[in-house]
Amino acid sequence: MKPRFDGYAAKVRDSFARQSLMATFGAEIGDIGPGRVTITTPILETATQQHGFAHAAVSFGIGDSAAGYSALTLLNEHDEVLTVEMKINLLAPAKGDRLRAEGRVIKPGKRLIVVAADVWADAGQDSTHVAMLQGTMIPVTV
Amino acid sequence: MKPRFDGYAAKVRDSFARQSLMATFGAEIGDIGPGRVTITTPILETATQQHGFAHAAVSFGIGDSAAGYSALTLLNEHDEVLTVEMKINLLAPAKGDRLRAEGRVIKPGKRLIVVAADVWADAGQDSTHVAMLQGTMIPVTV
Amino acid sequence: MKPRFDGYAAKVRDSFARQSLMATFGAEIGDIGPGRVTITTPILETATQQHGFAHAAVSFGIGDSAAGYSALTLLNEHDEVLTVEMKINLLAPAKGDRLRAEGRVIKPGKRLIVVAADVWADAGQDSTHVAMLQGTMIPVTV
Amino acid sequence: MKPRFDGYAAKVRDSFARQSLMATFGAEIGDIGPGRVTITTPILETATQQHGFAHAAVSFGIGDSAAGYSALTLLNEHDEVLTVEMKINLLAPAKGDRLRAEGRVIKPGKRLIVVAADVWADAGQDSTHVAMLQGTMIPVTV
Repeated sequence: MKPRFDGYAAKVRDSFARQSLMATFGAEIGDIGPGRVTITTPILETATQQHGFAHAAVSFGIGDSAAGYSALTLLNEHDEVLTVEMKINLLAPAKGDRLRAEGRVIKPGKRLIVVAADVWADAGQDSTHVAMLQGTMIPVTV
Repeated sequence: MKPRFDGYAAKVRDSFARQSLMATFGAEIGDIGPGRVTITTPILETATQQHGFAHAAVSFGIGDSAAGYSALTLLNEHDEVLTVEMKINLLAPAKGDRLRAEGRVIKPGKRLIVVAADVWADAGQDSTHVAMLQGTMIPVTV
Repeated sequence: MKPRFDGYAAKVRDSFARQSLMATFGAEIGDIGPGRVTITTPILETATQQHGFAHAAVSFGIGDSAAGYSALTLLNEHDEVLTVEMKINLLAPAKGDRLRAEGRVIKPGKRLIVVAADVWADAGQDSTHVAMLQGTMIPVTV
Repeated sequence: MKPRFDGYAAKVRDSFARQSLMATFGAEIGDIGPGRVTITTPILETATQQHGFAHAAVSFGIGDSAAGYSALTLLNEHDEVLTVEMKINLLAPAKGDRLRAEGRVIKPGKRLIVVAADVWADAGQDSTHVAMLQGTMIPVTV
């Protein structure tokens, strides 16, 4: 997959910095490549559900953002992207040192971009697959 | 739909109070009935995406929790509930005075409970349908 | 919801008649209104899964078509519609005299139309809710 | 992933042979391994939508069956499997010589099995990714 302009990674970082929810989660953006973006987050005590694990909305949030930014890497300089729909299957409790979402573009269409993301819980040397997302992004001109 | 014990609403309120992410969002639990639960939240500056609207993870989070608690109202006293999977379609930007998620049970099965939720953005007298969720909950004994 | 031209129901019937799979299922189109379409089908022996119930693909197929045609009722005369994505939750075995899918438009957007469908199994006087679909349609000009 | 008894492939073939809808589609079962199953089908004139491509229900049907049978390869000898829910994203028109669904197990849980499938349209030497499915299976004892 080919980006359409050189500054795609900087554009993703700028946009991520304006997602205040990501800062609230303590999330950081990691690797950014054409059609793929990684986001990591600690599991803050302010982001848990009733059993003390990360709330599903955290896995959803970093997975959705990683998937959306993977789409953004392939768009024109002044395009933005919105989530049309997203489905998440939760595979295991989200506990450990941190969560890591790896988003990727499956099909970069003109009108819609189909995306996916996997979320992993890292604890020491171990990684557990905790969630799997599949969804659709739409380019918007702002 | 019939609850299996009298204290189902108190049980939902107790569990909700332990979901720290809901407090982080500023969310509150509203009406609780057999098979249906409402959650409302302001749109805090700490919960936005890059355009200043509520992040999709907020609509997802309150929708998922409202749906999950609607399932919990129908379970036995010592059962808890986990999200198996959830799909969200985003219908409009999540902006306004507050978001309101109305969760409901579609099919209360023995092994799985199929649920749905709608999320509305209230602004003055107006309500806009901003998201629609459909998913599956599983009872767990803790 | 308002149709954009008078002949929307005839257009839906014409298109349905060209969906050979619907004829293979024995399916027939029923009520057609602005933003809503019903499709019914017998459960043929040629359309079952290994337990003798209708295959999930039958509930999916009539649900998807009913949802897609509900979107088509709101489009311009020369537009067609394609399914972007569709999610189905299966609620009960698809057995009985016939299946009935009721599709409806949830959000008629300019670029995308969010749709839903419920599938019922009718047996004598009884109806069982067997499937629930939520998805996205896109208008295409042919 | 480890099968629990030697005859898992024969069991899948037996079950597939009883899915009359698969015969109606002209579908055949291909490779069967632990946690993965392939199903191929021609695109019959009796299985098209209004533009002459395979109906979405065909891609859904072979994808759902391939995913379900991939789960079945990991179950006990007398267990069967049912689809709880399935989401499909359609990526390209389903046209060509044949469709090929590759199902696989993502997470083989005790109570639920999370599965995925990709559907490809083969035409001569070319393969086009036409659909992507993500869903949940449940073991049932019959």
